[in-house]
Amino acid sequence: MIIGKVVGSVVSTRKCENLTGSKFMIVEPVPSLKIENRIVAVDRVGAGIGEYVLVTTGSAARVDAPTAPIDAAIVGIIDDGSSLDNMQ
Amino acid sequence: MIIGKVVGSVVSTRKCENLTGSKFMIVEPVPSLKIENRIVAVDRVGAGIGEYVLVTTGSAARVDAPTAPIDAAIVGIIDDGSSLDNMQ
Amino acid sequence: MIIGKVVGSVVSTRKCENLTGSKFMIVEPVPSLKIENRIVAVDRVGAGIGEYVLVTTGSAARVDAPTAPIDAAIVGIIDDGSSLDNMQ
Amino acid sequence: MIIGKVVGSVVSTRKCENLTGSKFMIVEPVPSLKIENRIVAVDRVGAGIGEYVLVTTGSAARVDAPTAPIDAAIVGIIDDGSSLDNMQ
Amino acid sequence: MIIGKVVGSVVSTRKCENLTGSKFMIVEPVPSLKIENRIVAVDRVGAGIGEYVLVTTGSAARVDAPTAPIDAAIVGIIDDGSSLDNMQ
Repeated sequence: MIIGKVVGSVVSTRKCENLTGSKFMIVEPVPSLKIENRIVAVDRVGAGIGEYVLVTTGSAARVDAPTAPIDAAIVGIIDDGSSLDNMQ
Repeated sequence: MIIGKVVGSVVSTRKCENLTGSKFMIVEPVPSLKIENRIVAVDRVGAGIGEYVLVTTGSAARVDAPTAPIDAAIVGIIDDGSSLDNMQ
Repeated sequence: MIIGKVVGSVVSTRKCENLTGSKFMIVEPVPSLKIENRIVAVDRVGAGIGEYVLVTTGSAARVDAPTAPIDAAIVGIIDDGSSLDNMQ
Repeated sequence: MIIGKVVGSVVSTRKCENLTGSKFMIVEPVPSLKIENRIVAVDRVGAGIGEYVLVTTGSAARVDAPTAPIDAAIVGIIDDGSSLDNMQ
Repeated sequence: MIIGKVVGSVVSTRKCENLTGSKFMIVEPVPSLKIENRIVAVDRVGAGIGEYVLVTTGSAARVDAPTAPIDAAIVGIIDDGSSLDNMQ
């Protein structure tokens, strides 16, 4: 899984039917994970811009929505997430 | 998931039967995602060259077509996608 | 699979219901694997900070918990793990 | 999915039973995809060395052979593939 | 799939029950694949240190053992594998 900060969101009006209602957030991994790329994940917990979140990828993102074509989901909000920015 | 721009397409006449009718598009991730490589994805929403799209990967690409051997699909068109080129 | 050292943990109070009780550990791959990034994995074996562990990724992380949205799990403690730090 | 050129093959006599008859080809992604590494894929369409092919990865490689332990398959031959070498 | 050389092994006494009896080998991809990182894979064919092997990843590693939490398996021994070290 990945921990990161929500840095933005994207809107898609014309999309597959099973994505109706999904919120797509852009997540930047915290520096200590040393992951270069950002990931687009569907929000499952009501995360907002600036919050630190836990992201799951692959088929794990669909355990609650087997027919939605998604491969990444925000499944938790990290407590005291900002401290992660300074983690070595 | 990935957001990117459709930059090309490829044609395959000799292919597995379950791919008949599939359109294979080449997608370049937007710069802000910091993903180096492009991806080839099957179009599910009628995307055209130059459009900004939402791509899902892995088994998520097959939720609507379980017998098609595909691992990436375009599942949405991004509203106001060109603004993503300037996103930090 | 990945072998690495547990270097930290994160806490998420507000999370998907199926993650209740999960412990999220940050694992740094041993140098000889030449994997740059750290991974966040759910602990299944009672691993502690500083221990060397075996991590499985993808759907393999859910064989014991099919409804939990996790994509990485610690599934073993490595015997004599510190020797791995010097492996070429 | 990946598009690439078949640059070689490997033979394995001692292998899992469900791989009997499989042809393992080494595929190099076309330069425009900016993917560094080559991939070993099982041939499903009669591809030969030098041909440009479409490769699917992950569980998609097993839609036609659920019990074969393979994670990549050549599922199409690209028409006019050599033009891809010059694509920007 | 990946072809590589077995360069080591790890032992885990305290592990998930469904891993009992599994042998964990460290595999280094052959240079021509241009894959930087090593992978830890469960041996299915009796591979020894120094042998060149075929490794499958993801859910493909579990086709013969659906309840084992593994994401990589050695599924074949490469014939004349040492020649791969010189492949361009």
